Amino acid sequence: MSLIVQKYGGSSVATPALIQRVAQRVVTARRGGHNLVVVVSAMGKTTDGLVALAEEITDRPSNREMDMLLSSGERISMALLSMAINAMGCEAISLTGSQCGIITDTAHRKARIMEIKGDRIFSALAEGKVVIVAGFQGVSLDREVTTLGRGGSDRTAVALAYRLNAELCEIYTDVDGVFTADPRLVPNARKLDTISGDEMLELASSGAKVMEAKSVEFANKYNVTIHVRSSFNEQPGTIIKREDAMMEQVVVRGIAHELNEAKVTFRGVPDRPGVVAGIFSRLSDANVNVDMIVQNVSESGITDVSFTVRKTDMRIALGICEGIKDKFQAKDVGADEEIAKVSVIGVGMRSHSGVAAKMFQTLADEGINIEMISTSEIRISCVIQASEVERAVRALHAAFELEKEAG
Amino acid sequence: MSLIVQKYGGSSVATPALIQRVAQRVVTARRGGHNLVVVVSAMGKTTDGLVALAEEITDRPSNREMDMLLSSGERISMALLSMAINAMGCEAISLTGSQCGIITDTAHRKARIMEIKGDRIFSALAEGKVVIVAGFQGVSLDREVTTLGRGGSDRTAVALAYRLNAELCEIYTDVDGVFTADPRLVPNARKLDTISGDEMLELASSGAKVMEAKSVEFANKYNVTIHVRSSFNEQPGTIIKREDAMMEQVVVRGIAHELNEAKVTFRGVPDRPGVVAGIFSRLSDANVNVDMIVQNVSESGITDVSFTVRKTDMRIALGICEGIKDKFQAKDVGADEEIAKVSVIGVGMRSHSGVAAKMFQTLADEGINIEMISTSEIRISCVIQASEVERAVRALHAAFELEKEAG
Repeated sequence: MSLIVQKYGGSSVATPALIQRVAQRVVTARRGGHNLVVVVSAMGKTTDGLVALAEEITDRPSNREMDMLLSSGERISMALLSMAINAMGCEAISLTGSQCGIITDTAHRKARIMEIKGDRIFSALAEGKVVIVAGFQGVSLDREVTTLGRGGSDRTAVALAYRLNAELCEIYTDVDGVFTADPRLVPNARKLDTISGDEMLELASSGAKVMEAKSVEFANKYNVTIHVRSSFNEQPGTIIKREDAMMEQVVVRGIAHELNEAKVTFRGVPDRPGVVAGIFSRLSDANVNVDMIVQNVSESGITDVSFTVRKTDMRIALGICEGIKDKFQAKDVGADEEIAKVSVIGVGMRSHSGVAAKMFQTLADEGINIEMISTSEIRISCVIQASEVERAVRALHAAFELEKEAG
Repeated sequence: MSLIVQKYGGSSVATPALIQRVAQRVVTARRGGHNLVVVVSAMGKTTDGLVALAEEITDRPSNREMDMLLSSGERISMALLSMAINAMGCEAISLTGSQCGIITDTAHRKARIMEIKGDRIFSALAEGKVVIVAGFQGVSLDREVTTLGRGGSDRTAVALAYRLNAELCEIYTDVDGVFTADPRLVPNARKLDTISGDEMLELASSGAKVMEAKSVEFANKYNVTIHVRSSFNEQPGTIIKREDAMMEQVVVRGIAHELNEAKVTFRGVPDRPGVVAGIFSRLSDANVNVDMIVQNVSESGITDVSFTVRKTDMRIALGICEGIKDKFQAKDVGADEEIAKVSVIGVGMRSHSGVAAKMFQTLADEGINIEMISTSEIRISCVIQASEVERAVRALHAAFELEKEAG
């Protein structure tokens, strides 16, 4: 019998009524002849609520205790889902990350899955049970409860699909699939039937919220086919799979945008070896992830260095730069929170030129100033002012004719 | 260094502010030179909230999944308490029942502790940490999460105090200790400084809510000294310990009352062997606990059998009796929810007669009708109408002069 891994996000299990709906979907799939492993997130905003409780206690909770706290959320949702499935006459059992043998490293709150033992999953499946697994959590090599960080439930699902050699990994969410752009910004954005793993990875890393980037990367690497779809209707969503010869190589697949970054600029730095390394090693020590980095062409031996970080890290980044300003003889340090990043993504860029030129021209025609640029083999990203993001995404969507079916 | 086990009930950790207060108390005790193991219940009404969630899903949740669900409550409170203690500069670590090696049988929702391995508790204590333990939960011999039933956190604390050979087991609650009667009914009820384990057991079994009866029984059996006290002030509470020669043997220690029982009467049953056994074996099969049983003196070979059960079990008990009425040729079956049980308790009854007579006379003087009577070596209980319970408790408290210091 084929095995399917399904994952339901927090919005899909936010209330008992929604859990009943998910249970009905699981039971239908089970009666359709599939073995099922179902990964669940915590109900709705439970995790945020637990974080808020911890913040009432202390502003510096230990990561170990945060993981103990946060891991309670999925216990609740998985037990309720298991009860609901049992009540529909279909045998189910819920298992924690620890009970599944989801072994992680010891990095609390951002643990990485090292191995999935899965003994109890295998024996429950052999008994014909639907297995409900707590997403987002595992147990470390030193027997401590760990969590995988935001979006961790996606990673649990993909890793399980790989470990169990599942036919498919279905990611259920509150949107209908992956779109050519955010439908809230672009009314004629089109749902994609398929997308390559590489493209999905660039989309996810560029602000598309449908799936967590690390999970897409993992699925891509281990050839796990994903179906992203809505838990609120029966429509098929978007299939994400490794590129194959059959897949149409469209030039531009979609437009992503990101509003959660801020730009920090280190101005008037002497352009000599070691300065940039000095800045970024300090940011790295402080666990600040830097996204884009741009260094201006140097004239007269003085240069500007700009980089983007998550908005929540801006204050820390700014503090670090202020602290080393004098040492590196920089003129000053500035920051801008009111920025947006727009990205154009498509595997066809590998073989087609002219995408960058068309993107820059489109933004120029709209009178939108480009502040930073970065590219990958299949992506071009521009930082612009946040107030112009809607106009930029709509204009790019139209310019690349994404409302039309490709081919 | 001496070891103290402290247990904080749900009302003591109901909010982040109360958790901070508990943390302060723990830190003070730690700095006072004690090793500490702290058992916590779930915050406030968390467990009731989880039960209500399950009821929204199904009216027959599996006990295994209920335990998975309910055990999340203590994870939250213990992680928050551990964070709060850490934030005060005192090292703490929280451990689940499973992590502590609290091994139980497999009876979900009413598991019994079989053994406490405690390896991780011992090593954390050796590292100088305050150990926070999830009350109410364990792990069964077949590696399933179990809960101990209502009041289970008290049992966790007492069992740990025994296993760790603690000097004292402090049970923190929202009342100041054990009183000669419920202070809400009897304004001049007096807090007892000490009480024997036997007396406390009878009080707890007779409706005093301060501590769970099974925990008192366990403490009594294994000679664990308990200090029941309030987490809301610094006053000493009541010491519960095995009787010793030094303890004053007062005749009556206190009055308890219970409003959560109902009376079922099987009327007009032929008085022949096997009838009563037939009724009670069926009740036992249905897991209905029977408290008092009274069979009237038989005249003309026909008798009445009355018994009390918890109000929540009354419907089941009634159904069972209706079902066997014809088989046992009983006339009819009746039930009364509006009853109360009042009990007079004291170890001195062993050597003093006249307590029963005085109790019956006191109730008679008040015009209160006694419907059922049961006794133990150190307790006399009477079932009366619920509407008369306040008057009964006050009259008995006065008759036995409990407002006065004994001796």
